[in-house]
Amino acid sequence: MKLLLLSNSSAPGRGYLDHAREVIAGHLAGVRELLFVPYALADHDGYTAKVAAFMDGLGVRVRGVHTAGDPRALVSGAQAVFIGGGNSFRLLKSLQERGLVTAIAQRVREDGVPYMGSSAGTNMACPTLRTTNDMPIVQPASFDALGLVPFQINPHYLDPDPASAHMGETREERLTQFLEENDVPVLGLREGTWLRRTGEALELGGVASGARLFTAGAEPVEYAPGADLSRLLTATARFDHRTA
Amino acid sequence: MKLLLLSNSSAPGRGYLDHAREVIAGHLAGVRELLFVPYALADHDGYTAKVAAFMDGLGVRVRGVHTAGDPRALVSGAQAVFIGGGNSFRLLKSLQERGLVTAIAQRVREDGVPYMGSSAGTNMACPTLRTTNDMPIVQPASFDALGLVPFQINPHYLDPDPASAHMGETREERLTQFLEENDVPVLGLREGTWLRRTGEALELGGVASGARLFTAGAEPVEYAPGADLSRLLTATARFDHRTA
Repeated sequence: MKLLLLSNSSAPGRGYLDHAREVIAGHLAGVRELLFVPYALADHDGYTAKVAAFMDGLGVRVRGVHTAGDPRALVSGAQAVFIGGGNSFRLLKSLQERGLVTAIAQRVREDGVPYMGSSAGTNMACPTLRTTNDMPIVQPASFDALGLVPFQINPHYLDPDPASAHMGETREERLTQFLEENDVPVLGLREGTWLRRTGEALELGGVASGARLFTAGAEPVEYAPGADLSRLLTATARFDHRTA
Repeated sequence: MKLLLLSNSSAPGRGYLDHAREVIAGHLAGVRELLFVPYALADHDGYTAKVAAFMDGLGVRVRGVHTAGDPRALVSGAQAVFIGGGNSFRLLKSLQERGLVTAIAQRVREDGVPYMGSSAGTNMACPTLRTTNDMPIVQPASFDALGLVPFQINPHYLDPDPASAHMGETREERLTQFLEENDVPVLGLREGTWLRRTGEALELGGVASGARLFTAGAEPVEYAPGADLSRLLTATARFDHRTA
């Protein structure tokens, strides 16, 4: 399996995906046409054009999955798949309604087609939607996602701000609540970082701030870019363990 | 119907619920025992004790709904109901599994029992969970909530921070995404504010920053404490209008 899972698509002062240009070029080496999944945003054509403009610089053509009557046929023939960010509930519901959850997962898992996700597209690679930061603006039939890794990822991971007067939960508090209900590791990917999976190897990349791993019953652990996280690929996920 | 819907339960430098002491006292006037619903947090006993300590100062006894074999029986006999904040997905799932969504809504709607909510408990008073800020740590059977008001509320409403380098969506962007999919007004209740419904009258209360109303196809509108929002009680909610 070949995965590139980005925390986010934009870095301050940089163009769309520009902060990850090099790793994207490596991930898509040899790919002439990329199948893009724009369902996380409302404007599918506009979103696809934005991705096409970036990919043009890498010599990769882009086709939007929404442009076909049968999107599953496009998935069957895809050389590589990219699911973009936006609202992950809208995204998952759209994938479910079109039969694309299984179709894309099979193509990546069984045929080795490279998968790339950013933000909500990275959430999709997890077993479930349960560690998204997004608002549940629509109701998917289920929270089950593609399951290309056996653990959960929290994109845009944000450290607590001691200066904030906001009384809502911090991200760490939210993930602690997740671990009260689920015995499943969660990797908080700070902005500017990504994960690369090649077969049974998993490596952290990107900016120095790296990632923070949350596990039930243990203190969180920090990882720096270059860290080998392959052992997460053998993690056992027990959802709803408190009520199970 | 008598509703008191608080944006949040704690203000900086104040004790639990202390910022709303006066309005809570008015809302619960004549109530000797309050039924508390602690399911949004994992520690039901600890949470109930915290509420009891505050209510003791108002001369109101507190019983946790989790202390009965049949929680619905407690709802039938309740003089007033308070649903506390925490994770709204966990809360809604717990209410659904115990048949409490309908039981509490009926008691409030038909018997005029005062309902109070804070944060996730305020989300529960809306038609659906769709404008919560919480992480979907567990999967409820449905996003449908108590529907004690016909519009959506976003508690802990937070204005965009121009100084932030965080590339995730702002709250306003999230609510704009909600309005792309649903033609339903959303009231963003800033921290320290609340809504009071008495019959067909709805009034905003609390701190000067007030609330911000988001409606599909219109610019957001600001409201200050004391504003009469009764017309929101006749709002028509059209969920999933884009795909309907």
